[in-house]
Amino acid sequence: MLGDLTESQMEALLGSETVARLGCYGNGDVYVVPITFAYENGSVYGHTHDGLKVQMMRAHPRVCLEVDRIEDMAHWQSVIAWGIFEELKGEAAAHAIGLLVERFRPLLLSATALPQHALTALTRRRLDAHGHRAVIYRIVIDTMTGRYEHS
Amino acid sequence: MLGDLTESQMEALLGSETVARLGCYGNGDVYVVPITFAYENGSVYGHTHDGLKVQMMRAHPRVCLEVDRIEDMAHWQSVIAWGIFEELKGEAAAHAIGLLVERFRPLLLSATALPQHALTALTRRRLDAHGHRAVIYRIVIDTMTGRYEHS
Repeated sequence: MLGDLTESQMEALLGSETVARLGCYGNGDVYVVPITFAYENGSVYGHTHDGLKVQMMRAHPRVCLEVDRIEDMAHWQSVIAWGIFEELKGEAAAHAIGLLVERFRPLLLSATALPQHALTALTRRRLDAHGHRAVIYRIVIDTMTGRYEHS
Repeated sequence: MLGDLTESQMEALLGSETVARLGCYGNGDVYVVPITFAYENGSVYGHTHDGLKVQMMRAHPRVCLEVDRIEDMAHWQSVIAWGIFEELKGEAAAHAIGLLVERFRPLLLSATALPQHALTALTRRRLDAHGHRAVIYRIVIDTMTGRYEHS
């Protein structure tokens, strides 16, 4: 059975998944890249470093996010959302870092036994290994559709 | 440890995964959608019905595919590929259907106990429930990058 997800089912999927596929556009090409994210009140928050994806989103801030949970080919849910990319500074950035640390601490701890101070340092660090500046951002969703299939 | 996948590691990921996220562009917006696919000799083969995604790819045939295998946040592989969308007809379409049936028969059988004749009928059917025409296509990859992280 195929159908549309309700608003609250879409919110639940965004609130429970941690990986989205982000689609941006620039120089005539589409770029799709997996991102980790935290969802709150209609926005997706993320952390990255200055690079191709950020350059494309600055030039063309309307982006697409796809989030899914696929058990098998007959049991899946998928949300496709469009929204506007915004870089965050100051208190807004600190709020986003707090959300991301809360969201990923349990996952990172179980994956790598990373102590909390290391995670906080990681999330707050200003430059990556190539010297690229940290970028904290949100995508303010304006349009969203959701589909599911189950037997 | 972060690193680049080799050509053969990228091929292996494309050959073993069955879900890609396809990014297309049209009317000023990016659209990212999950697709099931079969990979052979530098091309990704798929089956869909006439709709938004196909209209966008006809108008703007260069698309992006993202394929990943994510165990957890510290253990993952990801390939991002760009290529040209082509609709297939006649023998080329029959070859693609054969590939897709071979690829998905074991998965569909285990998921839904669908008999083989039903799967073949499903893959060959001309119209979906909304009367949209079936579209068999391939994306001929011209550029590909791959990254991994493991501990």
